[in-house]
This record gives sequence, C-alpha cells and structure tokens, in this order.
Amino acid sequence: MSGDLLEELLETSRGRMLGDGVETLDLDEIIGRCKSFDDWYAVVADIGDRYEKMAEDYLSRGGKISAGEMFWRASMHYHYAQFYMFERPDLREAGQKKKVELYERAAPLFFPPAERIEIPFEEFSIPGYLRLPRGIDKPPLVVLIGGLESTKEESFLFERLCLDRGMATYAFDGPGQGEMFFQSPMRGDFERFTSAVIDFFEKNRSDQVDLSRIGILGRSLGGHYAAKSAAHEKRIKVCVCWGAHFEYQSFWEQMDSFTVDGVTYCCGETDPERAKEKVRFIDLTGHAENITCPLYIQHGVKDDLIPFAQAKKLEEAVVNVPELVTQFEENGIHCCHNLSHVNRHPMADFLAKHLNAQP
Amino acid sequence: MSGDLLEELLETSRGRMLGDGVETLDLDEIIGRCKSFDDWYAVVADIGDRYEKMAEDYLSRGGKISAGEMFWRASMHYHYAQFYMFERPDLREAGQKKKVELYERAAPLFFPPAERIEIPFEEFSIPGYLRLPRGIDKPPLVVLIGGLESTKEESFLFERLCLDRGMATYAFDGPGQGEMFFQSPMRGDFERFTSAVIDFFEKNRSDQVDLSRIGILGRSLGGHYAAKSAAHEKRIKVCVCWGAHFEYQSFWEQMDSFTVDGVTYCCGETDPERAKEKVRFIDLTGHAENITCPLYIQHGVKDDLIPFAQAKKLEEAVVNVPELVTQFEENGIHCCHNLSHVNRHPMADFLAKHLNAQP
Repeated sequence: MSGDLLEELLETSRGRMLGDGVETLDLDEIIGRCKSFDDWYAVVADIGDRYEKMAEDYLSRGGKISAGEMFWRASMHYHYAQFYMFERPDLREAGQKKKVELYERAAPLFFPPAERIEIPFEEFSIPGYLRLPRGIDKPPLVVLIGGLESTKEESFLFERLCLDRGMATYAFDGPGQGEMFFQSPMRGDFERFTSAVIDFFEKNRSDQVDLSRIGILGRSLGGHYAAKSAAHEKRIKVCVCWGAHFEYQSFWEQMDSFTVDGVTYCCGETDPERAKEKVRFIDLTGHAENITCPLYIQHGVKDDLIPFAQAKKLEEAVVNVPELVTQFEENGIHCCHNLSHVNRHPMADFLAKHLNAQP
Repeated sequence: MSGDLLEELLETSRGRMLGDGVETLDLDEIIGRCKSFDDWYAVVADIGDRYEKMAEDYLSRGGKISAGEMFWRASMHYHYAQFYMFERPDLREAGQKKKVELYERAAPLFFPPAERIEIPFEEFSIPGYLRLPRGIDKPPLVVLIGGLESTKEESFLFERLCLDRGMATYAFDGPGQGEMFFQSPMRGDFERFTSAVIDFFEKNRSDQVDLSRIGILGRSLGGHYAAKSAAHEKRIKVCVCWGAHFEYQSFWEQMDSFTVDGVTYCCGETDPERAKEKVRFIDLTGHAENITCPLYIQHGVKDDLIPFAQAKKLEEAVVNVPELVTQFEENGIHCCHNLSHVNRHPMADFLAKHLNAQP
C-alpha cells in the first residue's frame, strides 16, 4: 500500500479502527489489498459484504448472537469505507446508508440487544439505540455522542464498557451526524437535542432507567457537544469529553484539509470559507463556566487535528466543576486513538463512579 | 525483529495471540522491541508488568472491572512470554506461575466473575474456573480444555462467547497442563479427570448449572482429550474438537521440533525418544467409535503442526455420532489461529444449539 493519503489515514486511524472493532486480520488484508487511496472504499466495503454474507449464513442456522456480531462488523466496515470520502459525497452517502441498515439488522441480535428508538423533536426524528445491562434494576443512563464523522454505530464497544459496569446507554446522532445529517446539517444548538433525548426518557422510559443518574460522553467534536450539553442541562450528573473542542476559529487556518473538508461537508456547505463563518457557533466561551458536574477531559498532547491548546483552554474555563480529571496523554494523537487499547477504560470508570453504578 | 525462530513463532502464533486477547498495539510493540528470539521473554513479560501496574492503579481508584481486565491482560502476556520456552524450563516455570497468580487476581473482578474451584481427585487437586452467565437460571455447562501448552487462562474470550449465548463454563487444567503440570505430567487417562470434574459438579453445584446439559470443547491437543472424554463419559451431550489429534506415532518423525520439545517437556521427559514411546497413549483407536453425541471438528488444511490427515482419520472413525459437522478451513493453519477473528463463533453456536442454551 502506498500513497500519502493512505499513509495519513492509517497513521491517524489505525488505532481508532482497532478500538472501534475492526479486526486486526481484516486491517492487514485491507492494507495488503489497497494499492492507493482510490481502492479504499471498494476494498473495505468488500470485506463488509463478506461479513454480511457470514451474518446471513449464521442467521439461517440459528446463530443469532454470531449473526449480530457479524452484521455489526459489516456495519463497521461500511463506516470506515466512507469515513474519509468527503470529496465523494456519493460514496459517503451510500456507505452511511448501508452502515445504518446493517447496524439496524445487528441491533436486536446483540447481547444484550440494542433497541432502536426514534425521538420526535420539532421537525426532526432523533435516531438512537438504547441498551440495558442485564439483571440490573433501573440502571443509570449514559448518553453517548459521536463526533464530526463518527456516529452512534461506532459506540458499540464503548457501550460494552458501560454495560459491564452496570450502566445503560443511549447513543444517538445529532445534527450533522450520521443519519441526522440527512435531516439537518451541523447546528449551534446540539444541546437542545440532548435535552430532547432526556425529556423523552423522562416521559417514556422512567421505568427502565434511573433518570436521577444521567451521564454524558462525547467523542472528538462530540466532546464539545457533551460539554455544552452539560453546561445547559442540569439533569446531567457527570460529563466526559473524549477529546476537547473549545472553538475552531483560532486554528482554522492551521486545520488539516481533511478536517476542513469534513466540517464543510457536515455544515452542508461546499465552500470552506462559508463553513468557517458558520461554525462560529462551535465555541464554549460563556458556556464552560456553567458546567457544574464532575468533568473528565481526555486529550492527546500530540493531537494534530485539534490542538492540545484546546484542551488547556477548556481546563481553564471550567471553573465551577466540583471534580476535574484530565487525562492528557504525552504520546496521544487525536482522541488518543493510538492508545485505543488502554485509553477507554478510565472514562467508563469515571462515569460508573459518579453514577454510582453497580455491575 | 529478525531471526528464524521469531518469524516462525509469529507465523504460527500471531493470530492465536490476537484471538486470545493480546492487543494489536501491544503486539506491534513486541515486534518492534524484539531484536531476536532471545529478547522475547523479557519484552513480553515487561508489557505484562506494565498491565499489572495499571491494574493496581485502577484497583486503588475503585475501577474493579478495568482492574480485572488489566490483570487478565498481564496474565496473557506472561503466558505468551513463556509459551515457547521449552528449552528454558526456568523461564517457563516462572512465567507459568506468574500467569496463574495474575489470573487469580483477575478472576473475581471479571464481569461476570470467575470462581476458582479446586476439585480433589485421587492424589490431585484439579484447578479450574467456573463462570455463570448473568440472569440465567441453571444454564448448561461447557467444560473447556486447553492443549499441549495452552491452559485454562487463555479460555477467557471463548468463555465470553459461551456466556453471551447463555452457557456456563468450567475451564480446567488436566495432567501435563498449566498448573497441573507441577502435579503430574501428561497421562493416558485425561478422560478420568474430566469425569471427576463432572462428578464434582453433580455433587456440589447442581443448583447452579443444569447437569443434563453438559458440553465439552478442547483446543489443539485438548481436541484429543475432549473426543476421548466424550467417548467415555456419556453425561457429555455435545463435543467440539478445536483441532483434531488422533494419534502421534504416524507423523512423529515429521513433527516440527517445537512440538516435539513441547510433548517431551509435558511428558516430564528430556529425551524425545522416551517421550515418543510414552505418548503411545495419545490414540483414539478403539475410542472414537464410542462417541455417540453430536461432534464438531475444526481443523486447518494447512496445519503444519498436526497434519490434516489426523482430522480426516477422526472424521472417518466417529461412525456413531448422530450429527457430525466438520469445518476444514482451506487456508487454516494449526487450530485455524490465522482465522481467529472468524473461526471461533461457529463452535460456540454448535454448543449452544445442542445444549439448548438461551441467552
């Protein structure tokens, strides 16, 4: 495999893909089969198709749990087939839709299952998945938020960390993310969607989860949304920023072209300059000081997508949190994905501790 | 990393290590740090030590589930540090003992926990771990057996496949294996130890597991022990040979030196010729036809440790099984470890189907 873009992709994303559940032996195969970046989508999707067939095969023989895992793996392959395709909206859209479709087939087969819940809010329908830890009466609820191009479907393994610790999870796509992108581009009021989710659970699911114990975790740009949600929504009792995003303007000119393309796309724009103006709403100034629950910030010191200075800015601004834990990894890249084998457990532990979860 | 032995080790064992839970990013580090095979033990054990410290750290902060996983990972590193050390019995013994100690610390912290049970039998004490799937009343029980140098501790991820399908597991070391090696070398009556385990459960744990639904799975040489156990023990209702071993004599002269060293060591011998004579008891002639439960045989056609002919021999000899499924993988090496990301689920499904398990 050669080509700068491919190398860049693997450098920033190999640990991430592994951490989200792409199997090493499949990644070996992908690397072996891709001669250039142009092959990426087809090769990765092809392995996805193989998993889909495997899932069908298991299903026909009654192996539901295996089928669920294989549909999920197929879904992950379609996610990673399309994730760098901001310049190919046709592939991006096809990959997203296939990913969603595969995950929907996987969800009821999981152990424990994931229930798809679509939450009506204004003119939108917020799609997400609820999972309940087995054998726990009214567990706490962790709300999980993806990033610029990460979505609810990649939460699967983090959900396991929550479930194993006795916490329920609801992972959803908000404006600009995954399925919701087709309803709305990025907006400046993501936190209202978080509150709509909590309203829905209060109204409809208070028998299943303990709504006096709600936590939130957001990954990458989701770290921004999680922090802003916690600032505005006092029903949130603990917040984890898996990657800090304070604002975009101060480093927009230094932003790598992949992130600029991604933000532009998720804003529903084609001109990066217009996107830059639009995302002035990504800014925690005047919000961060309103976070009054325990907060955990993870950031890689070597993050070259979102500079470490962004994490320091957040650390300094959250003057009213009762407990602040910062995990700033000296050798960590974006979201510490190069440390994905060890960077995720402490965040789950922090949530479990503050939500008084019992496995 | 260079050196023929290292390359051979990785060729046969990379997929196995990944499948047993060694993290890809750790394996990358191991490969990067080992200049030759002489470095192997120290490098792998060093990463184990790092995980042990991480586990202690989590434990001190109340993160029991994380601590359990990290003690387990530390244990896996000690296993793989020593697994090729048949010519260094000092390192082999030190690594084994450290592995056992680390796993013992991990076990009660798992989700669900693993209970250490030592089963008295004649002059022996059979060590093993019981795990019960959460929220299932009297689940079926799967007895798990390791191989020549694989032990109960490496069953952890396969146990998860069983637990997720609603089955309890008891993984134990028999004569010549893991901890039991220090009580007894390999013997020709492994199946009596299996029966002793079942006797113990009938006498002491019939309230926890349904003993009318017992399955057995053995890996590598354990595939031999599982088949022989099923031939002699009619309380076993389904059997999986994760790698077939019919007998050793026909290919002893062609056996690779690693396996010869391993067999010699596990027999408690130093002279391979004496070992060869001793292991005449590894032979399913006159036993295979007594297997009368459903049987699953997995074997790699490219297995260069235990030739594929061994699997064919078993397939032909089991004339009285009511259902025989063979998974002979064209590109599979020993135990299909190079396909560890996909080869294990169907075996768990076969057990679940025949034990009428409900997740």
